[in-house]
Amino acid sequence: MTYPLRTIQEDGDAAHRSVVILDQTRLPHETTFVRLSGLEDAAHAIRVMQVRGAPLIGATAAYGVALGLAAGNSLEHTIAILAATRPTAVNLQWALDRMHRVLQKSALVTRQETAWNEARAIAREDEAANAAIGRHGLPLITAIAKSKGRVNLMTHCNAGWLATVAHGTALSPIFAAQSAGLDIHVWVSETRPRCQGLLTAWELAQVGIPHTFIADNAAGLLMMQGKVDMVIVGADRIAANGDTANKVGTYLKALAAREHGVPFYVAAPISTIDFSCAEGTHIPIEERAADEFSGTVPGTAIANPAFDVTPAALIAGIITEQGVRVADELAALRPNQLST
Amino acid sequence: MTYPLRTIQEDGDAAHRSVVILDQTRLPHETTFVRLSGLEDAAHAIRVMQVRGAPLIGATAAYGVALGLAAGNSLEHTIAILAATRPTAVNLQWALDRMHRVLQKSALVTRQETAWNEARAIAREDEAANAAIGRHGLPLITAIAKSKGRVNLMTHCNAGWLATVAHGTALSPIFAAQSAGLDIHVWVSETRPRCQGLLTAWELAQVGIPHTFIADNAAGLLMMQGKVDMVIVGADRIAANGDTANKVGTYLKALAAREHGVPFYVAAPISTIDFSCAEGTHIPIEERAADEFSGTVPGTAIANPAFDVTPAALIAGIITEQGVRVADELAALRPNQLST
Repeated sequence: MTYPLRTIQEDGDAAHRSVVILDQTRLPHETTFVRLSGLEDAAHAIRVMQVRGAPLIGATAAYGVALGLAAGNSLEHTIAILAATRPTAVNLQWALDRMHRVLQKSALVTRQETAWNEARAIAREDEAANAAIGRHGLPLITAIAKSKGRVNLMTHCNAGWLATVAHGTALSPIFAAQSAGLDIHVWVSETRPRCQGLLTAWELAQVGIPHTFIADNAAGLLMMQGKVDMVIVGADRIAANGDTANKVGTYLKALAAREHGVPFYVAAPISTIDFSCAEGTHIPIEERAADEFSGTVPGTAIANPAFDVTPAALIAGIITEQGVRVADELAALRPNQLST
Repeated sequence: MTYPLRTIQEDGDAAHRSVVILDQTRLPHETTFVRLSGLEDAAHAIRVMQVRGAPLIGATAAYGVALGLAAGNSLEHTIAILAATRPTAVNLQWALDRMHRVLQKSALVTRQETAWNEARAIAREDEAANAAIGRHGLPLITAIAKSKGRVNLMTHCNAGWLATVAHGTALSPIFAAQSAGLDIHVWVSETRPRCQGLLTAWELAQVGIPHTFIADNAAGLLMMQGKVDMVIVGADRIAANGDTANKVGTYLKALAAREHGVPFYVAAPISTIDFSCAEGTHIPIEERAADEFSGTVPGTAIANPAFDVTPAALIAGIITEQGVRVADELAALRPNQLST
């Protein structure tokens, strides 16, 4: 699978390195790139969702550390600024922890170069992990295709290549299914209020995967009508027990999927698992600004939680780069931090 | 409870009667009235949702019959045009059946006057029924207030006075709760794609009922967090077994409500019960135009079902003008058609 654009890439030479990102606030209607030249650019890009999706947030934060050090900021200050951008996606904290761990051990004279190298490693590992997620998820779709012919998938929000360094998480098995020649169709929910479903529709349209855009509200009806064979979503943070925070509205789809016997899968790299978080109730839920809704009524308060938590009991499996795992098997995926 | 505006009212004198409606496609940002001068005006108003909400669609259709006859159309033609406007709300068919039954028995010379009288009767009965729904629903809210203090209600779409001739259905007990001095707060879901949640927010803001606007996607999270004590929605058609068609997205809320032990009520006049429809699978689901979504992606198909069906098993009770009934008790509400 090749993509027309890169979500994030390095630019410049060793003397003047910068990072160029695809501005996702302008997609799908405009394709614009933004150059991140320093720490504040990187923090801003994450905060306003020029980059979004847990894996891409992680990679951008890693590059943000390199940009921060290059501009003469202290490591602690750099990490504090980036850590405060968004609270739910654990990949952000994961990437910052990893950068901190590596850079603390690094001699000052080589620290900047080490930061760029580690950020690059994080980005490349994300790309490889997501490709593996596609390989491990494909057999789940193939199995349904064997019994049903056409497979009707449903996803929520955007967990495609736009949400990652490459390949995507939830969409990676779907891209793999297309490459394998399976007959697939994807229900794409709008994902109010930010309408990231448009990004998913755009990704699918670019590679010719049949898909249908729906209101988030329509998911229950479609499952009741037997029009959905499988749900695959991404994740912003997976607790150690398998409870999964993802874009708000995911939980409603998971409840409907259980009601109608539709298998519900989460696709995410292991970096999305927060082994220090025992269960979903401990995951902070980001509250975003009211102005993400336009044209509302004077005198009306607005609540805008960006995520919800789907209990592990509703999840058939988590598709990781090491294979598909049920909640009880997550602990075995915990990396040995000493060797990282 | 007094309302600042009327959703539908007669105008003119016996020689030149017309009907004036509040144009709900312009609300809440503009208050505009539209004069319905003939059959096509009435059919158009229903089709494009200048009037909406099952009870108001019924009343508008009844007045549409009077307008059709006044313009010299045959009764059969008039009813056929109006019946074809929208498929799901049974009040439309109910009102047309009632008009047909009464007018068939009416002498030709008095038929026009009879049509206006019967339409007016339907409108007045709707107003009275909805006031009674408020009275019967109030004790359900009062009971929660006694144990919890503040009552957090949730509704979906708009089933306020805008959806009816007056008082509303789902909002009628909420208005009654405010009048009774209860401490209430209402979660108002956006209701994509037509955003009728804005109409609900506007209604609540007008009378000072505390409320918070949310994305449809947020309903599951709020219930999981224990922030919802009761859900009340309206209905477009209730099957004889209690299965209820209402605005798409209702079913997802009902599933989440059951999961978290939140009582889920439907409020509707008896005219919304289709005693000839055995169960929800027989209710036709209107598919509306793709252009209700703007700014979508070229090459992307759009599905836009306007309703879904909530099984009776998820509904704690149906609040009617004769009292609160569970599914098994609906048959006793069937009117004796000979005496109507």
